[in-house]
Amino acid sequence: MVDAAVRPKTTRPHPDSTDADLTIDIARVTDLLMGTWADTRREARELIKDSAFWRDDALGKDEHRERVLSQLHLLVENKAVHRAFPTSLGGEDNNGGNIAGFEELVVADPSLQIKSGVQWGLFGSAILQLGTAEHHDKWLPGVMDLSIPGAFAMTEIGHGSDVAAVGTTATYDPATEEFVINTPFRGATKEYLGNAALHGVAATVFAQLITDGVNHGVHCFYVPLRGDDGVDLPGIGREDDGLKGGLNGIDNGRLSFDHIRVPRTNLLNKYGDVAADGTYSSAIDSPGRRFFTMLGTLVQGRVSLDGAASWASALGLKIAITYATQRRQFDGADGQEVVLMDYGKHQRRLLPRLATTYAQIFAHDEFLQKFDGVFSGRIDTPDDREDLETLAAALKPLSTWHALDTLQEAREACGGAGFMFENRLVGLRADLDIYVTFEGDNNVLLQLVGKRLLTDYAKQFTGKDAAALAKFAVGMTAGKLFHGAGLRQFGQSVVDLGQVARSVENGLREEQQHQLLAERVQQMVADIAGRLRAAGKDKALGARLFNENQAELIEAARAHGELLQWEAFTDAVRRVDDADTKKVLTWLRDLFGLQLIEKHLAWHLIHGRLSTQRAAAVSQYIDRLCARLRPYALDLVDAFGYEPEHVRAPIASGAERERQDEARDYYAALAASGEAPVLEKVLKKKAKR
Amino acid sequence: MVDAAVRPKTTRPHPDSTDADLTIDIARVTDLLMGTWADTRREARELIKDSAFWRDDALGKDEHRERVLSQLHLLVENKAVHRAFPTSLGGEDNNGGNIAGFEELVVADPSLQIKSGVQWGLFGSAILQLGTAEHHDKWLPGVMDLSIPGAFAMTEIGHGSDVAAVGTTATYDPATEEFVINTPFRGATKEYLGNAALHGVAATVFAQLITDGVNHGVHCFYVPLRGDDGVDLPGIGREDDGLKGGLNGIDNGRLSFDHIRVPRTNLLNKYGDVAADGTYSSAIDSPGRRFFTMLGTLVQGRVSLDGAASWASALGLKIAITYATQRRQFDGADGQEVVLMDYGKHQRRLLPRLATTYAQIFAHDEFLQKFDGVFSGRIDTPDDREDLETLAAALKPLSTWHALDTLQEAREACGGAGFMFENRLVGLRADLDIYVTFEGDNNVLLQLVGKRLLTDYAKQFTGKDAAALAKFAVGMTAGKLFHGAGLRQFGQSVVDLGQVARSVENGLREEQQHQLLAERVQQMVADIAGRLRAAGKDKALGARLFNENQAELIEAARAHGELLQWEAFTDAVRRVDDADTKKVLTWLRDLFGLQLIEKHLAWHLIHGRLSTQRAAAVSQYIDRLCARLRPYALDLVDAFGYEPEHVRAPIASGAERERQDEARDYYAALAASGEAPVLEKVLKKKAKR
Repeated sequence: MVDAAVRPKTTRPHPDSTDADLTIDIARVTDLLMGTWADTRREARELIKDSAFWRDDALGKDEHRERVLSQLHLLVENKAVHRAFPTSLGGEDNNGGNIAGFEELVVADPSLQIKSGVQWGLFGSAILQLGTAEHHDKWLPGVMDLSIPGAFAMTEIGHGSDVAAVGTTATYDPATEEFVINTPFRGATKEYLGNAALHGVAATVFAQLITDGVNHGVHCFYVPLRGDDGVDLPGIGREDDGLKGGLNGIDNGRLSFDHIRVPRTNLLNKYGDVAADGTYSSAIDSPGRRFFTMLGTLVQGRVSLDGAASWASALGLKIAITYATQRRQFDGADGQEVVLMDYGKHQRRLLPRLATTYAQIFAHDEFLQKFDGVFSGRIDTPDDREDLETLAAALKPLSTWHALDTLQEAREACGGAGFMFENRLVGLRADLDIYVTFEGDNNVLLQLVGKRLLTDYAKQFTGKDAAALAKFAVGMTAGKLFHGAGLRQFGQSVVDLGQVARSVENGLREEQQHQLLAERVQQMVADIAGRLRAAGKDKALGARLFNENQAELIEAARAHGELLQWEAFTDAVRRVDDADTKKVLTWLRDLFGLQLIEKHLAWHLIHGRLSTQRAAAVSQYIDRLCARLRPYALDLVDAFGYEPEHVRAPIASGAERERQDEARDYYAALAASGEAPVLEKVLKKKAKR
Repeated sequence: MVDAAVRPKTTRPHPDSTDADLTIDIARVTDLLMGTWADTRREARELIKDSAFWRDDALGKDEHRERVLSQLHLLVENKAVHRAFPTSLGGEDNNGGNIAGFEELVVADPSLQIKSGVQWGLFGSAILQLGTAEHHDKWLPGVMDLSIPGAFAMTEIGHGSDVAAVGTTATYDPATEEFVINTPFRGATKEYLGNAALHGVAATVFAQLITDGVNHGVHCFYVPLRGDDGVDLPGIGREDDGLKGGLNGIDNGRLSFDHIRVPRTNLLNKYGDVAADGTYSSAIDSPGRRFFTMLGTLVQGRVSLDGAASWASALGLKIAITYATQRRQFDGADGQEVVLMDYGKHQRRLLPRLATTYAQIFAHDEFLQKFDGVFSGRIDTPDDREDLETLAAALKPLSTWHALDTLQEAREACGGAGFMFENRLVGLRADLDIYVTFEGDNNVLLQLVGKRLLTDYAKQFTGKDAAALAKFAVGMTAGKLFHGAGLRQFGQSVVDLGQVARSVENGLREEQQHQLLAERVQQMVADIAGRLRAAGKDKALGARLFNENQAELIEAARAHGELLQWEAFTDAVRRVDDADTKKVLTWLRDLFGLQLIEKHLAWHLIHGRLSTQRAAAVSQYIDRLCARLRPYALDLVDAFGYEPEHVRAPIASGAERERQDEARDYYAALAASGEAPVLEKVLKKKAKR
């Protein structure tokens, strides 16, 4: 594996346009990408240069699981995973830095990242966030030093996205002052839990808390799984999930509980408690709000997936674009073989994805700042918590889907070489596959965002009387008619006619991109809200209408997330002083914005936001941006800051360039020797003359 | 594994609209899908019900490779793989049936399908199609009975898509009447060859044939790799590709040749020969046409990938849709948990992909008929061969990309369960990943189609004088202006206003779908041709313009393939007599057509083919079709004809339904017992009253 870790030669291809002689300040761009916790990221990257942390593709599932467990111990030894824990227990109370450091582990091995996340980010966080001082003192030291590997037992076979409906019960028995944890039917078995198949000796178990004949909803309990002898306690059921599509370094499995008794004080009681006599109490009166508050404390999983997925996309593009600047195929007009990156289609495949990756990394840093603000207590109001959750639900789906899309396109762009495991792309994709449905199914998360957008929209009308609402409804319709009738289209057409190139760039600059993206979100939400209003208080009709609008609501939520990413990218570009760098990053931001507009072009046309002329020009402008960015493609992936020990893919090591050079040298020498065979077709042509 | 092979109960959900009480003739639909070689397909499916042919997920790469080799021997014993070989040698001269039978192996294990393809479809076919009687008699019996496992050595590290440029040389030495096969540089090493790492004892090697100082282009040679002692012959280099993203039951590897000498008669000489004195001869004068003729005889790989990918998509949908009709999540308006298939978004995710899968299976059967016609000699003209190759280049990319997309969506639609290896989806997706770049990179294939479309387009003007061409150019521009100015849009709007639902269905029926899809292909090709024409005889400008239009040309080729699929689907529906079945299949065809139109909606708007009103209605119509098709979703996947031994995924076995029923029974009994805990929120509501 070390052979692959050779520093590639990265000379920029010859510029062939006036836009091609700019000089990017790569180090500055790297700083920008690394973001607020750049130091922690650099520290983590330095640590994982050690091959002990790398994925070893030769290992089968069982050996891989043991290797990752041993890597977790190495992380403990290196104090790499305790940043979020209380200073009093040896941590740093550093929430943002902790996540940043975790995310970087993805390029060592996603199994390492996720198993660490299970131990310290989920199991440990549940104790930290849902428990109180007694729990912290009792269990966190063991969680931190890995003497208590644990499972986070929330999801069940029968209930994934709908956590509130889990079947596991925790019934309080005042006679013994114990909770009885029970799995009442097969579907209530806890499922897909890391550490459950093998390594977990305890679990934080989410169950319906029942005391005194009342179900107070889902709460979390600390449940030991094994005795000191290492044998499972009586009543604990444990099954191995076996082989998965990826992340096979993690021992996922199932847990069931046959009337397991735990002390009353094993209830992690920060948000709800049961007294010795069975009396339930909580500072949060509403069971619904209490439930969402508890779940909200566990948002960090989504935060770190957003970052890890974005950086995995970056690594995929670093590999594919490096290869594309070395690999040659088919002769060009000059008789020389053309490097892949010079093909129009290849640029179209990789560069918009590069732009999106930049946008996601910038958006992620803002997201991480928000998370750190809330969890440090600096800006921790209920509104901030709600915003943070909405942000998580908007960004995690986009970045995780983007990672799969990008890693797949990167693999295809590398042809057969992309399919070889050693070149990383297929392995990363397989491991990241589950990111799109765990820690919240992406579609369900986006639906949450959509509902929040509808709520915010409705708030505008709070307190307004029927007359005002009616007036608004008329306005809406008028607005739609205005757009629908194409009046605005007409105006654009007049301006555009005959001066396409200039008018396009004029009409699709920063402000227009923002306007198009923002108005789309607003209009979609307003339209959906209008359609849902028809239900009034008819619950069944409401459900039907909601279902009919579900796909569009999810699309509106996606548009909202894309807008946030665009805004983050734009803010990042504003922080750049160097003119050349700013110019290239602005093109990249434009490419991101325009490919979003192109993706939804029909919407913009139907709603009269773009004339057909301007719409047609969007794709041409994207082509032009791709060509402009082509000379900087390598600089832009180098700016991700990955070193050979992070990349490790032989095809991105310069080996391809060496092979190409060898072949070209061979043919040159053959030609010079005068002994090169003549091509039959050349002979035939000569004969014809 | 046998546990999973339980026949699921498949009761249709309660109909809730007047369109929901139709009865589909499932057996008739199965016949339709099975197509021309239904008997062979049934025979193959019956054979692979034997678990000896199934993929065993517990095996690592090395054991998997040996298992697949042993399965190949089982295929020989069962006479399942010789249909395409000459009757004289124990085959059946049945080309179409042979491919149909091969394709079905994909549901047993894609590694089995592809390793069989390497042995009999590539290595064996090269000897059969490029060799002559002497070669057939000498080697085919050993190829057929697997006593000569062989590699098909075409691709090199440095040349995949550009086969004409391979570096391997075969230089004739008249002194010994031998060819010297040589790998002159590292990039000329043969790469990614099945059977090369371990099992191959011979190879068909593609190399530049050089005799008498002239390079006659790429020809194929039979090259022994091992002696009778099983040891590699001197000068043979062999390397193992190791772990891949999928298909790890195949021993892919590299082969290099250090001045290996083979007898002159080892040249597979059907299309070009070298006499003992070194004189080259060929019945095909043009080296270019000769090369493409030789490659064309090997089209069957693409044919079988198209079919295998389509049927793998079918299996993925069978699994995901069966699960979606049993799995419940979140309460509906009636307080009962809703099955996934009843959610609008879930229908949108799965049903258009089901429609596309039907279209591809129908298109594939037509493709297979064409292939059989050419290879049986019934309709074997150069034009037919060219059409066949274009068809292969158009359909294989679409179906293989669709398989990856569908298997991924199916996996996500099954959530965490979809990520478990035992549920098939991740394994199938990983194995099929490489289908999109092997046997011709999909983008390169589509570019070939695009070039053919341009050639056909140009043929219209052959012989026309400059005046006629000029007149045509004016017409073109006028046409564009006509569309661009929205005159047609206006007419549509008038008709559409105020009667959206009816007018939409009127305006988007069969004829209109065909017109929209067909005109898009024509217009795109005409537009690109117009832009390329500017180059005239300027080669460099021509290359630049082509590159600028590359992405769009590929898109035009895709549109062409989609049109062919739509036409095949429509022809298939016409063959159905039963009214109910025809109605449902027509909806499914409409869904296929409309989602294509929706995908390219911006194009239709920009080119004035749809008014904004009608365009907006396309999505609504799709929603309506999804709702109409919902009650038949299960019937439509049952019609694929897969039995439990083919499906094997526990989540599609009925286990989920049993778990759901158990949970519902538990809660019902609890409620009946009067001992169910009261929900805190219910208590709180009561207290407020």
